[in-house]
Amino acid sequence: MSQQVQRASCGLDLCAVPEIRSALKAASMNRYEFVCLPLVHSRFKREFFASWKNRPGPFTRPDLTLPSRDWNSFIVAKISPYIDVDSPNEFIRRQSEYALEQELGYAYHLGVPAIMLSLKGLNTSNLARILYSKVLEITQYQVWIHVPMVSFKISASQWRSDYEENGKNVDEMCTWEWWNKFRSLLGFEKKIGIVLEMSTDLPSQEECDRWLGEPIKCLLLSTSTFVTNKKGYPILSKAHQAFVKSLVPLSVQVIIKGHTKHDNLGFYQKYIDHLWQDVQYQNDPLSYFGRGYEDCLQCPLQPLMDNLESHTYEVFEKDPVKYNEYLRAIYYALIDNISSEEKETKILTVMVVGAGRGPLVTAALNAAHRADRKIKVYAIEKNPNAVVTLEAQKEEIWKDSVTVVSIDMRKFDPPEKADILVSELLGSFGDNELSPECLDGAQKFLKKGGISIPQSYTSYICPVQTSKLYNEVRLIKLKDSHILAQFETPYVVLQKNKYIIAKNQALFTFHHPNYDDPIDNTRYKILNFKVEQDCVLHGFSGCFETILYKDISLSIVPETYSQGMFSWFPIFFPISEPVQLKKGNEIELHFWRAVSKTNVWYEWTITKPVPLHIHNPNGRSYKIGL
Amino acid sequence: MSQQVQRASCGLDLCAVPEIRSALKAASMNRYEFVCLPLVHSRFKREFFASWKNRPGPFTRPDLTLPSRDWNSFIVAKISPYIDVDSPNEFIRRQSEYALEQELGYAYHLGVPAIMLSLKGLNTSNLARILYSKVLEITQYQVWIHVPMVSFKISASQWRSDYEENGKNVDEMCTWEWWNKFRSLLGFEKKIGIVLEMSTDLPSQEECDRWLGEPIKCLLLSTSTFVTNKKGYPILSKAHQAFVKSLVPLSVQVIIKGHTKHDNLGFYQKYIDHLWQDVQYQNDPLSYFGRGYEDCLQCPLQPLMDNLESHTYEVFEKDPVKYNEYLRAIYYALIDNISSEEKETKILTVMVVGAGRGPLVTAALNAAHRADRKIKVYAIEKNPNAVVTLEAQKEEIWKDSVTVVSIDMRKFDPPEKADILVSELLGSFGDNELSPECLDGAQKFLKKGGISIPQSYTSYICPVQTSKLYNEVRLIKLKDSHILAQFETPYVVLQKNKYIIAKNQALFTFHHPNYDDPIDNTRYKILNFKVEQDCVLHGFSGCFETILYKDISLSIVPETYSQGMFSWFPIFFPISEPVQLKKGNEIELHFWRAVSKTNVWYEWTITKPVPLHIHNPNGRSYKIGL
Repeated sequence: MSQQVQRASCGLDLCAVPEIRSALKAASMNRYEFVCLPLVHSRFKREFFASWKNRPGPFTRPDLTLPSRDWNSFIVAKISPYIDVDSPNEFIRRQSEYALEQELGYAYHLGVPAIMLSLKGLNTSNLARILYSKVLEITQYQVWIHVPMVSFKISASQWRSDYEENGKNVDEMCTWEWWNKFRSLLGFEKKIGIVLEMSTDLPSQEECDRWLGEPIKCLLLSTSTFVTNKKGYPILSKAHQAFVKSLVPLSVQVIIKGHTKHDNLGFYQKYIDHLWQDVQYQNDPLSYFGRGYEDCLQCPLQPLMDNLESHTYEVFEKDPVKYNEYLRAIYYALIDNISSEEKETKILTVMVVGAGRGPLVTAALNAAHRADRKIKVYAIEKNPNAVVTLEAQKEEIWKDSVTVVSIDMRKFDPPEKADILVSELLGSFGDNELSPECLDGAQKFLKKGGISIPQSYTSYICPVQTSKLYNEVRLIKLKDSHILAQFETPYVVLQKNKYIIAKNQALFTFHHPNYDDPIDNTRYKILNFKVEQDCVLHGFSGCFETILYKDISLSIVPETYSQGMFSWFPIFFPISEPVQLKKGNEIELHFWRAVSKTNVWYEWTITKPVPLHIHNPNGRSYKIGL
Repeated sequence: MSQQVQRASCGLDLCAVPEIRSALKAASMNRYEFVCLPLVHSRFKREFFASWKNRPGPFTRPDLTLPSRDWNSFIVAKISPYIDVDSPNEFIRRQSEYALEQELGYAYHLGVPAIMLSLKGLNTSNLARILYSKVLEITQYQVWIHVPMVSFKISASQWRSDYEENGKNVDEMCTWEWWNKFRSLLGFEKKIGIVLEMSTDLPSQEECDRWLGEPIKCLLLSTSTFVTNKKGYPILSKAHQAFVKSLVPLSVQVIIKGHTKHDNLGFYQKYIDHLWQDVQYQNDPLSYFGRGYEDCLQCPLQPLMDNLESHTYEVFEKDPVKYNEYLRAIYYALIDNISSEEKETKILTVMVVGAGRGPLVTAALNAAHRADRKIKVYAIEKNPNAVVTLEAQKEEIWKDSVTVVSIDMRKFDPPEKADILVSELLGSFGDNELSPECLDGAQKFLKKGGISIPQSYTSYICPVQTSKLYNEVRLIKLKDSHILAQFETPYVVLQKNKYIIAKNQALFTFHHPNYDDPIDNTRYKILNFKVEQDCVLHGFSGCFETILYKDISLSIVPETYSQGMFSWFPIFFPISEPVQLKKGNEIELHFWRAVSKTNVWYEWTITKPVPLHIHNPNGRSYKIGL
């Protein structure tokens, strides 16, 4: 958990660089961390279509212009814009292939950290192929793909009418489609990132959001996008600010291009950095707590099989919201069950099952104190290490009001039955840490008509586009597992670089106590999601909501989020191959919760718009141990 | 190469079996090799929706009814037809799940080789899941999925109007869509096969053809589909015969169901066997030669890097067509270049490059003899083992007319130049054994204006659906290779179990001699194919055509096939994941031939209807050595 404030990392885009050392120095003095410059001077363009093959002399500046470490650290090499390896004209295509290979080779020779190329349309198959072959399979540098948010073809009315007259596909005007086709050809390769050029007129919110699910490396801002405030400094419009800020959690860099319009080149950098600070100083415990965890995959906890560590208890006990809500829930349960007339005589038995180091015991005692009611508490915990802490707290604080029992709740044979059963056994997906199975076992020591806190919980799920997580999942190597195992496992992850394709829908609900006979905790549900715009499905994001007691609830569902709570990150269920979605498509998700004698697991698939294989059949890749 | 004639393997489908031993005996006496019978008596259906859970007594006949080896060899267990695990009614769904698990478990207990279930619509996700979990991941038996060729819903006019009124998707009426969704959910799992029930009215030819790309295990024929011939025996209509015959090369079995209408149950078996013999006794050298090789993947030969073995030479020299066409080509080339006036004085020099064991040398000498022209032959061969044979033939037969040179043609420094260069360096895809690179090297010893036989060659390619080959490719394990390597390699394979989605189109052409400067043997072409009906793309089938001389050609392109030639099987280029296609879709194929100093390789992808990653970038999975 790195909790430092990040400063904005800015670079400068230069069209032409007569003198590279001084350009670098000027940029650095204005706090820019790198510059993007053309690898080859544009004067070579004229020679491009002629007999340049036999031209004497070098085709660009020599490597000696800068020391190696400067090339390595500060220079992003821009590939010549007139190169067109997808030209229908075979001569231009072959000349372009030659020129591109020459520039790619020279970038490799210089050792720059990244090269930058622009997409100009849908017609990029040969470019993709050459990059895949010559760069991704061989060299180390990153490939930055410059994509405008709005097609320059749209602004040129001639183009637009051309397109409309010829009835060409509107996809050709959507720059996201350019990018989507291009990166699909490259197999969603991780070394490819986007340099997204922010347009003066932003596209719809939905379209802006879609970019948030893409691997954006840099945001490219033209100085002309800035307006001037009263004091003469450059600032961005509200809408532009909002979009820039939405990129801060994705750790993008910013590139400034164009003429300096505000006295000093450094003003732009300062303003961007100011936006960065602004986002990070927002007082949000979840963002603070989650810093450094963004888009990091974690395997879900299995507290039933494994014992949690001290550190884990400590982190979760600090949640500013969760235990307060538990306290309120217990408070009202006590008030409802002991009238003020009975308050001196009636004593309720509260059993905390899975007491951990005792936060719910404390909450129960505080609730009783606040409600002015009498209770007797049992703290039941299977982890002997946590029991040490419970015993110590009993000794020092709780005294006789609490009985500590060191046992698995499913095996506990209590001396009396409970009026209230309190537990915190929920995972990111509600039932995924086997709360249903545990509480079904524990309810045998709940009195008829007794209360379980929580009363119920429901998992929610929605489809997401997230290149980043898809790549993270794909790169996981699991030994001796099924070949698809990494795609058939859910991950707990604070998802930032994602686009939510459709809103969350409720999936599985569990109620406690559960008097069904027999109790059946298997589930199967079919959900349908409408796709609002072309995008790519990479998996499903899961979360949950729980009713603790009556109207007191905890939620990590975005629409009803318990503000400030950080105990749970969402869960991510991948699919084994990205699915291209079209506006108007329906996603039909099938989700199962399966139960055997020893395990619980999920299986999932989609049957629309195309059927995929069922993920994790028979729990072959992922199971939760009972 | 197994060249025995296969007999038809037939089974009997029984609705109810009062006495299993006698049923089995009767079937066997009529030459049926197995029977399909209900695992549970239909009288249990009534109990199904009631309280059967507590019913006393066994739910079906005991295993002791038959000895184990009979269960293992002769019995296909049919799952009860009223089980509906996809019912929207939760009670029926759960009862069905229970009953299905019970039957699956019992089939496992009996050790039957296969179970059989029927698809009744598109709504099969839960069925797929249960089979995936309970059968494919655990047990050994095969799963036979019974699918009618035409939906029973179509015949029932009530259904049809229901569907039309409610505007339901016509997909729901297409039984292939039922199958396609089902097997997609099961990840194209190899253990799943089809029992295709032939309809009385066959669907369109296109629809019949589509089934040929599916893993059909059995053809189910109702006795009512048969008509009676003059002699009173059961036969099939011409159309039905044709469809049955088209399945013979796929090694399907046949199941007969329904009442015996023609005296004797054995008549049906005899008739089916007669059709089988009919297909196999057709006088087609390719079918004969290819028997046993159907749908077997082979790595393409690399004769430039590796030396062929004696056996390989022997097999290919037997081709009844190829050398005859070469002879004709050389004959006309001689006639064209030596007028009858010159025939006593002019001697042409013919160089056979890559002479192998000499079949083209013989062809050249025979052509000269037949044309009554004089020639001098050089036999150039790099494989020293084949040179032994060449020397022996020179000694014994050819004598002074032939000069044997043991050298790689690219290094040969000839004492004189040739008038005619003859070679047979073509692979299944034309240029894929590097004929262009070899002949470009060899043409330095061809006289200006000299002739190359072949003059040119062109590769062809078409999209195919072939579950079978997809599964074969998927199961290949390549050590220390890229994770997708098996999907990025072409295979030489006699493709039988396939559906050709669209006709072959010409891809790359090479001409010889080639006087371009510089010679560029890289290629890039985009092809578009129209999809005529819903289907699944698994890869591309490649073949070639070559012009030997003027109008004399050799071809393995289906439309222009050189009848009787068996020297080349087609080549198959897989894709890494099946792509679901819809009628009216366009497939846009991009194909590259890449050349480096040491290697040649292909790269390929599609960009429509969805973009896939580029296959084999930089030859990472497959290269041909120069």
